[in-house]
Order: sequence, then C-alpha cells, then structure tokens
Amino acid sequence: MILATLDLLRQSGLAGAGINPIVEASGAPKGSLYHFFPGGKHALVIAALKEAERVVGDGFRAIFHQTAPLPQKVRSLFGATATRLEGSAFTKGCPVAAVTLDIDDDSEELRTICHRVFTAWLDVIAIGLNDVPAAQRAGVAELILATLEGGLVLARAAASKDPLIQTGAVLAMTLESVVTRSRTGTRRGRPRSARKPRRGRQ
Amino acid sequence: MILATLDLLRQSGLAGAGINPIVEASGAPKGSLYHFFPGGKHALVIAALKEAERVVGDGFRAIFHQTAPLPQKVRSLFGATATRLEGSAFTKGCPVAAVTLDIDDDSEELRTICHRVFTAWLDVIAIGLNDVPAAQRAGVAELILATLEGGLVLARAAASKDPLIQTGAVLAMTLESVVTRSRTGTRRGRPRSARKPRRGRQ
Repeated sequence: MILATLDLLRQSGLAGAGINPIVEASGAPKGSLYHFFPGGKHALVIAALKEAERVVGDGFRAIFHQTAPLPQKVRSLFGATATRLEGSAFTKGCPVAAVTLDIDDDSEELRTICHRVFTAWLDVIAIGLNDVPAAQRAGVAELILATLEGGLVLARAAASKDPLIQTGAVLAMTLESVVTRSRTGTRRGRPRSARKPRRGRQ
Repeated sequence: MILATLDLLRQSGLAGAGINPIVEASGAPKGSLYHFFPGGKHALVIAALKEAERVVGDGFRAIFHQTAPLPQKVRSLFGATATRLEGSAFTKGCPVAAVTLDIDDDSEELRTICHRVFTAWLDVIAIGLNDVPAAQRAGVAELILATLEGGLVLARAAASKDPLIQTGAVLAMTLESVVTRSRTGTRRGRPRSARKPRRGRQ
C-alpha cells in the first residue's frame, strides 16, 4: 500500500494519491487501509515519503560514496535518473518534489516531512564530495540536488531524457572547475599530473 | 479569472485549481466561467500557463537582456525569485513546474503546453548569454532554469529563501569559470585586465 502510494505520488503528486486510486493500485481491501493507517491518506503519504527518503537516499549513497571524480559521479546520477524516468514513459519523477508543489494550508505538516527528506539527501551527497573543499560541500550538494529536481521537471515536460542528460553534462563541466580550482589552491607548487592539459595553454 | 487560476496553480498545482476554488478566488459568478471558458478548468489552466509564459518570460528578459556579467545576472535572478517566494510566505512557486508534476493520463495535453512554456523561457535566457560561447548557450540556459526550478522546490520545502540564494551563489561561481574559460580561449595573448587576480596565483 505504501509502494502504491509512492508510485501515485511520483506520477501526479497529492492530486493523484486519493484513497480510491491507492486502494485500486495496491489491490488491498479498503478496510485494511484504515486498519493499518487510521490517519488515512495523510498517514500513507507520510509513510511513502519516508520510504522515498530511504530508497532514493540509497541511490545517492551508491553513486556519491564511491571513489570517482565528482564530474563522473554527477554524470552517473543524471544518467541513472534519466534512465529511470524513461522507464516510466516519463510519467514518474520525484515524489518529494511533487508533494512539495501541491502543499496547501491543510497539508503544512507534509512540508516539514519533505524538507526533512531533502535535508537527509543533501547530507548523503555532501559527505561524498571529497574532492570539493570542505567549506563548499553543502553548497555544491544543494546545487546538485536542485539541478536534478529541476532537470526532472524539464525532462517530464519534454517527455525526453535530454534535459536531464544535458543539464547533468553542463553541471559536471562547471563543477570540474570547482574541483580543479580547489586543487590549484591546496596543491599549489606540486606537479599537477592528474590534470589534463587544456587547449590553448600548451 | 485567469489570474486567480494562475495563483492557485502556483500554490498547489492542478490539485488546488478546482472549479470551486477558482470561482471563489476570482469573485466572478460560476456561470461566467463557463461562458468565457466553455472548456472549463482545463481551458482556464491553459490560459493561465500562457499568462505565466508571458509574465515570467518578461522577468527573464529584464534580467538576461541587460548588460552585466553572467554571474551577476544569475544572482539577480535567484535573488528576485527568492524575494517573490518570501512575499507569498513560501506558498507560491512556479505554476508550470507544479502542473508538470501533477500531470496524469487525462491531462497529457497540458504537458505539451508546459514544455512549450519552458522552451520559450530557455530561448529568452539563452539569447542573453552573450559572454558564453555560442555553442554552450543552450546548455547553460537549461542549467540555469533547471537549478532555478529545483531551488524553488527546495526553498518551498524549507520555507526559507536560503536554498535559492545559496544555489544561485554557487551556480554563479561555477558559471564564472565557464565565462572565464571562454575568454581564455578567445582572448589568448591579450592582457586579461578585466579578470581579478585569484588568491594563490600572484
């Protein structure tokens, strides 16, 4: 039932996750929904958002906690996200973003939950930014997550992987300069054999 | 009536823009809605999205078609967006993103409209990227719009301007390197008096 709710949230946010569609998608009897979730739709949405925190967080962990240069991690993330979006025929994006943009006066509690999920994801990403100066990691993590969420919106509207692949590539390129710049600062004077020579600078 | 719909879409997407809330917010009698918009809610949402294309597009034009370095334009855009979001007590974001994430099988036509609005905005931004190499303008425009849309999501969830201000600042910093790099390429050999000396490079 939680997974059915999560799926509906990915597709059309709070607008799509009504009790009837949830019951229909999960195949469970309506009575059991209220048995396990006396809070109804609201409680189910919270459980689904927590599930998203865990599953998507594991995805960020798998990409950012490996040993690889930052630009490569960024391209992996945007590539994997684009492939998953394409697998849903461009109908299922980020459930937390979809809920955030649907919140009204009656669902203010959900905003707090969404904020907590985003904060948890940002922490997972920031920890993996070992080739970025420590003071910049939180900001760079926020830029990566914001670009991913926005790229997902543009890709869903376009019904195409391109906006995700392209923004991922440009982001990776610009972040290369942040990483490089930090190396220039911290490894000044040492041979910079890891850097490729740039055109026009032979 | 169009503006009332736009306002409701900014707040909670398709979930919030029902016929009754629209009639209530606009103050117009229900009959006049069906008189002017025989297509009902669907037709009104399309009119509101077109209005957003115009108004938000003018905002992008005002910032990107002025003479200023790109990083400054990016900080202006994110600063202005953050101020507007704060002015709505963090309840009203981008109507086009909110609709995009609410689309289901019945509203596929709206997806096409959203895509068209995003494409129009990307063109307006790209034209203003005169200090970016021509071949990179479309990609950089897409990165800017994606980051703005994602920053708006994070800022709404946080009920704070910070995610927009911070992602805008980090984006401006990383884009500075794109602009700088292009100058390195095109103005090689000439004095680079316009560039500030960097720490660690005296």
